Amino acid sequence: MQRLIYLPLGGAGEIGMNMYVYGYGAPGREKLIVVDAGVTFSNMETTPGIDLIMPNMDWIKKRIDDIEGVFLTHAHEDHLGAIQYLFRFANLPLYASRLTARMAQHKLQEADISDPQIKCVEPGKLDEVSVGPFKVSFVPVSHSIPDSMALIIDTPKGRIIHTGDFKTDLDDRDVGDGQLFSSAWRQAAKSEIIALVCDSTNIHVPRLGRPESNITPNLSEIINEAEGLIAATTFASNIARVRHLARAGHKAGRSVVLLGRAMMRMVNMAIETGVLSGFPPLLEPHEAHHLPRNKLLLLTTGSQGEPRSATAQLSRGKFRGFSLEVGDTLLVSSKTIPGNELAVARVLNRLAALGVRVIEDHNGQCHVSGHANRPDVTHLHQLMSPKLVVPMHGEDRHLVEHADLAQANGWNSVVVTNGSVLDVTSGKICEEIDGVGCDYLDGNQVMPSSTRVIRDRLQLARQGSVSIAVSEGRHSDDLEVVCKCVGLFSNAVETLEDAVIETVYSRLKNDALRDQANMAILERELTIAVRRLITKTCGKKPVINILMTTF
Amino acid sequence: MQRLIYLPLGGAGEIGMNMYVYGYGAPGREKLIVVDAGVTFSNMETTPGIDLIMPNMDWIKKRIDDIEGVFLTHAHEDHLGAIQYLFRFANLPLYASRLTARMAQHKLQEADISDPQIKCVEPGKLDEVSVGPFKVSFVPVSHSIPDSMALIIDTPKGRIIHTGDFKTDLDDRDVGDGQLFSSAWRQAAKSEIIALVCDSTNIHVPRLGRPESNITPNLSEIINEAEGLIAATTFASNIARVRHLARAGHKAGRSVVLLGRAMMRMVNMAIETGVLSGFPPLLEPHEAHHLPRNKLLLLTTGSQGEPRSATAQLSRGKFRGFSLEVGDTLLVSSKTIPGNELAVARVLNRLAALGVRVIEDHNGQCHVSGHANRPDVTHLHQLMSPKLVVPMHGEDRHLVEHADLAQANGWNSVVVTNGSVLDVTSGKICEEIDGVGCDYLDGNQVMPSSTRVIRDRLQLARQGSVSIAVSEGRHSDDLEVVCKCVGLFSNAVETLEDAVIETVYSRLKNDALRDQANMAILERELTIAVRRLITKTCGKKPVINILMTTF
Repeated sequence: MQRLIYLPLGGAGEIGMNMYVYGYGAPGREKLIVVDAGVTFSNMETTPGIDLIMPNMDWIKKRIDDIEGVFLTHAHEDHLGAIQYLFRFANLPLYASRLTARMAQHKLQEADISDPQIKCVEPGKLDEVSVGPFKVSFVPVSHSIPDSMALIIDTPKGRIIHTGDFKTDLDDRDVGDGQLFSSAWRQAAKSEIIALVCDSTNIHVPRLGRPESNITPNLSEIINEAEGLIAATTFASNIARVRHLARAGHKAGRSVVLLGRAMMRMVNMAIETGVLSGFPPLLEPHEAHHLPRNKLLLLTTGSQGEPRSATAQLSRGKFRGFSLEVGDTLLVSSKTIPGNELAVARVLNRLAALGVRVIEDHNGQCHVSGHANRPDVTHLHQLMSPKLVVPMHGEDRHLVEHADLAQANGWNSVVVTNGSVLDVTSGKICEEIDGVGCDYLDGNQVMPSSTRVIRDRLQLARQGSVSIAVSEGRHSDDLEVVCKCVGLFSNAVETLEDAVIETVYSRLKNDALRDQANMAILERELTIAVRRLITKTCGKKPVINILMTTF
Repeated sequence: MQRLIYLPLGGAGEIGMNMYVYGYGAPGREKLIVVDAGVTFSNMETTPGIDLIMPNMDWIKKRIDDIEGVFLTHAHEDHLGAIQYLFRFANLPLYASRLTARMAQHKLQEADISDPQIKCVEPGKLDEVSVGPFKVSFVPVSHSIPDSMALIIDTPKGRIIHTGDFKTDLDDRDVGDGQLFSSAWRQAAKSEIIALVCDSTNIHVPRLGRPESNITPNLSEIINEAEGLIAATTFASNIARVRHLARAGHKAGRSVVLLGRAMMRMVNMAIETGVLSGFPPLLEPHEAHHLPRNKLLLLTTGSQGEPRSATAQLSRGKFRGFSLEVGDTLLVSSKTIPGNELAVARVLNRLAALGVRVIEDHNGQCHVSGHANRPDVTHLHQLMSPKLVVPMHGEDRHLVEHADLAQANGWNSVVVTNGSVLDVTSGKICEEIDGVGCDYLDGNQVMPSSTRVIRDRLQLARQGSVSIAVSEGRHSDDLEVVCKCVGLFSNAVETLEDAVIETVYSRLKNDALRDQANMAILERELTIAVRRLITKTCGKKPVINILMTTF
């Protein structure tokens, strides 16, 4: 018996970290393709110190020999940022469009993965690739990065559409080429769709999505009317936006300077790969310093408040020779990704305090989303008329809402979250994979999310730490206690460390303890005594390290 | 020479932590009143482990003898949460309306401050109190808590209006009593206003504010149509909302249960003080367990995703005998305060995964703001026709935007941030107070924000910690090294601690170091060696504690 399966490993339970598997064959021996290998970002509340979060790939590793190919829908980090971690296990055939392939190549190179088999495909050019039991072709889609595509996956059991991230606007394909939205999708729907695996990101947004052209006049107007220097920040990967800003600046007689590594890398890659043309001439930062402020447009990284980004550095003073001052403008042409609100606010408030005019997107006038909103998703359901709607790319609440919407409109729909295997033909979950979840990149280590490292870090962050060396020498009264408190404050005792040392001495001078043969018990006793002291003195419950030495 | 001053100590640079001083007299010897004493909340990114943030009160403490009275505009934590810290310095005359006075009394009692001189005033009843050179009277205002008021401060130099938090809707005064918006404010504007000190919270919201009545039919409909158990969460202090939800539930034949301490406290205080009447009968949790699910409405705390709140506990399992399941509804009748997005998402996703229908305010259908929006603020400017608009309660970007708006409409306006003294008559900043900022409540300690505690905690959280005891005995080869790593992970060495110990031994066996008389230098050497090891092994830069003992 052969089965056709869909298994999300990431992205079906969060926005970010996309990784989906399709398989066909005998249960447990299906031939597989992987769609996307993305990361998501950490936060101080749940993942302090973590550099990146990626899907746990234990299952992939076990099944690596069954994987026939990897497809990347577009070049956003949450779709390709983990590609080098997937390629740890094997050098797999990789299919992507121009810009995506270029970004993937860059990531694999940086990870010293040599000779990746990257095959560049062109959505809209009727490319079709055969991988194992699958034939995959590509639908060009509008999104907030060029060269995005949906996948048409033809299987022995019928056609699956995997939308990737997409929006449904009709008129903003001014970067790259390809068919218009409706004709491309209608083409895809000519064969019966057995499953539409569909982006859920904006399922809660009740209004129709807007095309990029909806805001370009506003952005031009802001740039035309500004008087001093203009810094405009957006997602570096939103090449259409970056191009429009640059062209509007150029047209207004301003020289354009890119600030921030991501901005320079994305623009360069987009030009190299041919997805970006007609970009105005650029000046290097050092070439632009002498220009009058009203002849300058800086395109800056940092729309999410990243502390080391160009915008954040400008808010704190000079960056690459530029600084912002009274009469200058910062145009924020982006939305704030949930979790980044406070970081963004810090940057914008510093600039406001400097007298810089800060123009944010309070009313949708400076940014449009790259994702299909609720009515757009409904429209796609109708266009595709699938036998099954499978909500993809969303938190639990998005997936559930998407399935409810589909069902309300008469479609079959099933919520499949990370680690659940869908039998596509029956529309039922047929298996649960153990141990699916995420892994953390922490410094140079990839660690499982289940280690106690995070719990310890959160306690350190909230409660501080007390380290105590207790050393016993060869003479009967040889006893030394040294202490260091980190992340603790007290008004109540002269120094907290002296109070800790006194507490430890007074416990140890009790003979019963002093003679205690079992160091583990002694350690526990001391920990309790010190914790009690700190709780009383500071109201905190720090991590307590007792380090005992004896001669 | 006498001067009239306005000095914000908190709230003019952030949303939260409101504390404003007005003074009249010879410079440096003005008689003062304090308006509000609020707190703001910490976050893991900048203030890990901190329980509350309040204005630094060093200046207040120095001038305590000049303070003639304290006024609280309403009972939100960001306006009264620091009252007990102000009362550390002196028992001052305190003026507030019923609910606010009751809340303040509760806080002072909890802090063991005995016999506070609380004077209950009634906005709208033409109460006027004389405090030093000031006559203060009260305008009832609509806000998201009952008994809110603006202050009319009559000074020897003219009338100041301090709006407090307010909105301008006309028809939602169904809790408490008082005049209607426009007549009360017109009354206040009969004397010339020399300064309108005005809430800036929603200055970026471009649409007209909406009254509470705008959403009550939606909320009723949601409650009428839900089939299983309904849990509805909102700010406990939004008594009008809580009352509407409770009444709608009661009308729909449901028994109403309050879950969460804040919800019970607020409702009880509101009933006690007379600001809440007509509340339906309540059941205790244990009285309601036996009822059918469709006969129950739980009003729960936790609209901001607080991990220990009733809603969060319900999302993790049973709370007070209740649990939510497939077919039940969670109605979120609130907005998410910036910074709480991820915490709220975690709770709602857990519930969605349980099959609970989660109704959020994606479209303004479940919540209205308690603050005046941009056009509402413009309306108030016109109504008051002040000589000077002083934006208050906002981050820098809000204050600047508010001043720009006022100026664009022809009013004089000046941005005054925390620590700047405004000479109200001239409309110019006349002095800057040193050392203004915030203090942190950390456990049971109040600490200045300038200590290195926070920096250390952030490093602990992001990088972990390594504690090493190095003990030298009396014999020439008596050397013991013990190590504990906390918050660090490594795949690369068998155990990280052994690698650290080996590194320390190998450094110490170098005679030059072993004989090093200066322990500080030795400590630095070892720190560098261990940091290098951890950077190489884990890619992290932990806090390193070297604890040396010798005999």
